[in-house]
Amino acid sequence: MNKKINRKSFFKGIALGTISLPFLIRACGGKNVAQNITAPNILSAKKYRWKMVTTWPPNFPVLGEGCNLFAQWVNEMSDGRLAIEVYGSGELVPGLQAFDTVSAGGADMGSGAAYYWAGKTPAAQFFASVPFGMNAQQLNAWILCGGGMQLWEELYAPYNLVPMLGGNTGVQMGGWFNREINSLADLKGLKMRIPGLGGKVLNRAGGTAVLSAGSEIYTNLERGVIDATEWIGPYHDYVMGFHNIADYYYSPGWHEVGTALEFFINKKRYDALPKDLQVILQTAAARLNIWMLSEFEAKNSIYLRKLVEEEKVSVRFYPPEVLAQLRSFTEEIITEITDQDPMSKKIYDSYQKFRQGAVKWSELTEKVFYNNLQI
Amino acid sequence: MNKKINRKSFFKGIALGTISLPFLIRACGGKNVAQNITAPNILSAKKYRWKMVTTWPPNFPVLGEGCNLFAQWVNEMSDGRLAIEVYGSGELVPGLQAFDTVSAGGADMGSGAAYYWAGKTPAAQFFASVPFGMNAQQLNAWILCGGGMQLWEELYAPYNLVPMLGGNTGVQMGGWFNREINSLADLKGLKMRIPGLGGKVLNRAGGTAVLSAGSEIYTNLERGVIDATEWIGPYHDYVMGFHNIADYYYSPGWHEVGTALEFFINKKRYDALPKDLQVILQTAAARLNIWMLSEFEAKNSIYLRKLVEEEKVSVRFYPPEVLAQLRSFTEEIITEITDQDPMSKKIYDSYQKFRQGAVKWSELTEKVFYNNLQI
Repeated sequence: MNKKINRKSFFKGIALGTISLPFLIRACGGKNVAQNITAPNILSAKKYRWKMVTTWPPNFPVLGEGCNLFAQWVNEMSDGRLAIEVYGSGELVPGLQAFDTVSAGGADMGSGAAYYWAGKTPAAQFFASVPFGMNAQQLNAWILCGGGMQLWEELYAPYNLVPMLGGNTGVQMGGWFNREINSLADLKGLKMRIPGLGGKVLNRAGGTAVLSAGSEIYTNLERGVIDATEWIGPYHDYVMGFHNIADYYYSPGWHEVGTALEFFINKKRYDALPKDLQVILQTAAARLNIWMLSEFEAKNSIYLRKLVEEEKVSVRFYPPEVLAQLRSFTEEIITEITDQDPMSKKIYDSYQKFRQGAVKWSELTEKVFYNNLQI
Repeated sequence: MNKKINRKSFFKGIALGTISLPFLIRACGGKNVAQNITAPNILSAKKYRWKMVTTWPPNFPVLGEGCNLFAQWVNEMSDGRLAIEVYGSGELVPGLQAFDTVSAGGADMGSGAAYYWAGKTPAAQFFASVPFGMNAQQLNAWILCGGGMQLWEELYAPYNLVPMLGGNTGVQMGGWFNREINSLADLKGLKMRIPGLGGKVLNRAGGTAVLSAGSEIYTNLERGVIDATEWIGPYHDYVMGFHNIADYYYSPGWHEVGTALEFFINKKRYDALPKDLQVILQTAAARLNIWMLSEFEAKNSIYLRKLVEEEKVSVRFYPPEVLAQLRSFTEEIITEITDQDPMSKKIYDSYQKFRQGAVKWSELTEKVFYNNLQI
């Protein structure tokens, strides 16, 4: 940088955050004193205003609220230097355009769940939810400490995106039905709102997976356009009011045993941040991860009680043999995916290897824990 | 502040971080331009050097490493403005003096597990581990989203400490034995290294709980000074080499079903920090929380395989009737504690109420998940 500056360009330098502390000191007439001065973050005093596009309705309970919390923590930690404006689905772009929008630089970051992008790159769904796959504790361990994150970064790199883990729903519920499921025959002809791999599995079982936007599910179920729907868990399901129009609430959510939520950040924008703001983003995402699973656990416990005690909802379990058959269809479908797509094979191999170790470990720990609970 | 300053006091001002941006601009000769400049964090450019005393041996796997990671993240996020030096047990003070040291201001923060302080305030143990109590997912939910944190803050306030959740081990293992445990009779006369509430439960079952420092356990078990020991899980147990001197490895760790780790921060030092650094500490602790459980899950899976496949360790399960009896002793002991200490009663009531809801919820979700695993 040219040391001969006029005052105007000097202040411009501060405003753009490109000015270094030694330079500032020289400009102010300082000499050797510079070495003794420690005010490192003047270096990164540039202010960034980011847009986050999300796949959630604005302020959607837990998921949208989590994005707001994330933005708040980032703003607080950066002392206002990284201000993120959160847009609900449709406010800036439709929710399912979030990935492409951020990829192209139309927004700086986005929030979603990776299975939404399975149509672009099938392996994405392994970073959100696999039917009969890993739950929150296992999936977090694989992604954060078992090599999953490196694969995810590799998968999103061609889209100019940096992925971050940003939450988990925990094991979801299996959905609301107007008929009992006693055998696989009861799934035949069943029209059910169920997206993703779970929907493919239902189709293979003889049902018909229907896609409905969240806002249409209630009316479709009430009018018999669909016979069943999955959603999330007691808290969100209660708010939707499904207990008013469906007879049975099924456990477990075999299709979503611990769905991970994600952030995806435009790589150029991320790389342009100073290191402190990059780590602030990573750390805020991790805080959201633990907060979200905790919030789901706390709220679902409360709303399950409401549904059962106040609303007299009848909870049922999928019969084990139905689950076994659905699992077998799941394996078929995943094999078809990994046979066709080398990246899916590479990632699912890592997923499965980790899962096998985690299952063995859980047989001595979490499984024994849950089977010995008394209240 | 006096506007007529000489250069020496000006630089002193920057070094101490007390100088404001408008002041800096005036000192450099700027005038109206000041309004257009946004560099908010120059306000908080003061540099803090903190000491963290821990209850772990220096760089102890996962737990001590986690403290190092925490310090690194805080340093990176604050761009060096909050530099935390981590001291292992005995490096500055003995591990079990960490709480008193930070309380008195002899260090700025500490890392431990709250049950270490049960002698000072019995309710502390409810924030670490309760035999047959809540696992990691449930305990996180209670503390972060179920009102637990407010109670914890209330409990530590008289000690001038601010608590933060900073990790979880997950369900631990039940320990290494040189005799089989087929009935409660096999616990009678058993000398076992087992601290805390678990030790009290063993005593009530007719055994003898022995306290040994980590460094002495191996020799004591080898020489028959003790008949059994618990430690953590496969990763740490493997490193200790217990499989070389004990015949049976028991599941589950009924006494530690999800032990929480904690930070405790001197309240005056915490309150003296600018808001951005306070949120940076909170957020780094949350990141450590999710990292630690993930790291335990990943490492324990790998080392369980080593123990079973390479070292041919014989894994056994406590018989259900032994677990039921140990649970009954646990309930007796907790009732005695809550009868004597109103704060323990207040906190345990909250703990139990949350737990009851979480158990009901887990019966439809995590329990069904773990019972339907196949690999």
